[in-house]
Amino acid sequence: MAHEQAYQALEVDTLAQRLGSVEAVASRVGANPEQWQIREVGDGNLNLVFIVSGSAGSVVVKQALPYVRMVGESWPLPLYRAHFEYYALVRQAQRAPGIAPEVFYFDKPQALIVMEYLYPHTILRRKLISGERVAQLGETIGEFCARMAFRGSELSLSSPEKKADVGLFSGNVAIPAITESLVFTDPYYGAEMNRHTPELSPVVDELRRNARLKAKVQRLLMKFTANTETMLHGDLHSGSIMATESDVRVIDPEFSQYGPMAFDLGMAVANFLMAYFSQPAHRQADELDAYQAWILDVIEACFTRFDAEFRHLWQTERTGILFPRALFEAQGNSADDACDALLEEIRLDALAYCGIEMHRRVLSLAHNADFEEIEDTALRAKLEARNVLMGQALIMEPEAYRELTALADLARAYNQQEVL
Amino acid sequence: MAHEQAYQALEVDTLAQRLGSVEAVASRVGANPEQWQIREVGDGNLNLVFIVSGSAGSVVVKQALPYVRMVGESWPLPLYRAHFEYYALVRQAQRAPGIAPEVFYFDKPQALIVMEYLYPHTILRRKLISGERVAQLGETIGEFCARMAFRGSELSLSSPEKKADVGLFSGNVAIPAITESLVFTDPYYGAEMNRHTPELSPVVDELRRNARLKAKVQRLLMKFTANTETMLHGDLHSGSIMATESDVRVIDPEFSQYGPMAFDLGMAVANFLMAYFSQPAHRQADELDAYQAWILDVIEACFTRFDAEFRHLWQTERTGILFPRALFEAQGNSADDACDALLEEIRLDALAYCGIEMHRRVLSLAHNADFEEIEDTALRAKLEARNVLMGQALIMEPEAYRELTALADLARAYNQQEVL
Repeated sequence: MAHEQAYQALEVDTLAQRLGSVEAVASRVGANPEQWQIREVGDGNLNLVFIVSGSAGSVVVKQALPYVRMVGESWPLPLYRAHFEYYALVRQAQRAPGIAPEVFYFDKPQALIVMEYLYPHTILRRKLISGERVAQLGETIGEFCARMAFRGSELSLSSPEKKADVGLFSGNVAIPAITESLVFTDPYYGAEMNRHTPELSPVVDELRRNARLKAKVQRLLMKFTANTETMLHGDLHSGSIMATESDVRVIDPEFSQYGPMAFDLGMAVANFLMAYFSQPAHRQADELDAYQAWILDVIEACFTRFDAEFRHLWQTERTGILFPRALFEAQGNSADDACDALLEEIRLDALAYCGIEMHRRVLSLAHNADFEEIEDTALRAKLEARNVLMGQALIMEPEAYRELTALADLARAYNQQEVL
Repeated sequence: MAHEQAYQALEVDTLAQRLGSVEAVASRVGANPEQWQIREVGDGNLNLVFIVSGSAGSVVVKQALPYVRMVGESWPLPLYRAHFEYYALVRQAQRAPGIAPEVFYFDKPQALIVMEYLYPHTILRRKLISGERVAQLGETIGEFCARMAFRGSELSLSSPEKKADVGLFSGNVAIPAITESLVFTDPYYGAEMNRHTPELSPVVDELRRNARLKAKVQRLLMKFTANTETMLHGDLHSGSIMATESDVRVIDPEFSQYGPMAFDLGMAVANFLMAYFSQPAHRQADELDAYQAWILDVIEACFTRFDAEFRHLWQTERTGILFPRALFEAQGNSADDACDALLEEIRLDALAYCGIEMHRRVLSLAHNADFEEIEDTALRAKLEARNVLMGQALIMEPEAYRELTALADLARAYNQQEVL
């Protein structure tokens, strides 16, 4: 069986032979592996991804490579990230059913996961660039973030279970280290792997001189590295979301770690805001305003549903050691104000994490297609500048934008501003 | 050798035979174990503690029992707490040299640590009840807390080292669980093991009706359980400090865990404040004012030295991933404001943790001698009431007492107030 072999990267030509005898795979693809159709569809960042189809159906086979694929063997990256991705997928299935792809098979030594093939879903980022709408997008992501935040914390889990999980995930050092540097630190100085649109330089230079901003970002990094409130997805950008017109799924939790409740929510909203600011390069005037307005509605729905779902779970599933009923309901004291105060803290930190994600996607190594595909670099820089300045405002003064109307107003104001 | 045997509790009659052949012990006590003098001096809470003396000197032998000694075998407690005590002692010796007792020998299966015998040191709590002064008490504790806070965090440690340590300490569930319930939750409702001075009941009842207070305490519990900023002592009360007139040492870190930087500092100051409020029952009028004033000086020195030492380490040892020099000094930006902002947060949380410790010591299971030895329960309740109300003020509004003069004024005001 495959898992008795030493690690070996799969290839299109060897996959059927290697996985054909695995019952969990064969039962879903078809009993004749020699007839399987196999395509490698990895986007080139980190992993091998195959779509394997046969008479019975299709599955996705994802295998980690021992290095960063987009950089090469000069940047080694441990295979164990596939283990944490598997642990995360299992926990997501428990805590927020129906959102992550179902796992059919896991081979630990091969760093290999066989999972549900999502079809006809496509990557949300492509849809946002193409101007497609997805029903319930904000609601689904907000609900997913709330369920994962609440059910992965000691508001819900028993302390022994939660502490054992923190211990398990503390074994993942290399992956969080990528986020720690690429997201929180590199954007704010001339780090070696950085790049940005040349015309954006005046904005970048000024941002990097803002010592108060850098201090606030580093304080948020300190929370990210130390504050094990809940299990995060860890990389919830619009390339980690797949959707149809009416179904939303979340994939690729290999950056999962225990961290602050606000992080995933903030990163998701940042990617909606970057889609928003990039729209003038992707839409004709006759559909631009309506589509941008829809994106702002998605953001509002995301925050609103997060709060509503978190409050619902607070009322119905508060079984952990934190804010126990013995202190509140059992004494005739409502715990609603305590929930609201916690949600307020989460909102503010989410806005600040949002600002950081908006920065790193135009200043650090990993850019996103929303801006990158704008070939006119002067236009790209102009739109990126709006994005960078709004990110700065969110980090510097999140309390000014805690109301969702103020947040939308801020986005609309920067969307009109001629920065460059 | 002892560590090849299954766990067996030491006894005065068996200790010399069991440890006589351990070179690390025999070399410090004397080569003739049959001539060793052995006294059991455990205070009855959790462990066996022996002082072993011979021709060459004396050592302390501490062995965990598999249950809570003060309650009995009905409250089992894992032996592994001795392992975490050992890990903590080793890290304290590295990070704040000269404060913890030196470790000579560790036997993991026997949950047994042989360490330096501190002489003529006595427990600080006894000194505070007796009205003795200790030179540099506040300074030493403040410096110890700052060194442990800074050097156990990702301000200083490499991320792989810090994350591995968080993973190691996540194996300790049972000991933090004691703090989580006895310190943070039990004081605020009628938990089964609670007790308090009968005359204090009106104050207790009102405190337990304060829903905002309970919410703030639970938010601090959430930080305590999730926020792995640094390695804590975890139980830094005045019974965990031994001193002479001029030397201060910290013992018993078996409640060590990774947690918030503010926790140890807050707990230490709480114990100084409880000593302060209990003084009217222990001092004659002619020495009361001066001794209480000295305790307030100790508190001021503790906070002041904490900040000064933390700033010093920030300048000289900031080698971790947090607030890296590449973002600040290397860009011509001072990081001093960032340090001050972090110290401000630590101060506020320390004041709130201080208030919680002040509560649990008169409302929960584990009381302290400062109040317990006051036989006149009406007087005891009167002094405890001042302590409880000041604790409440610190939890509800720590920002009002961030200035040390305001904190001392608050203590003096409650010290004059006739609550009961």
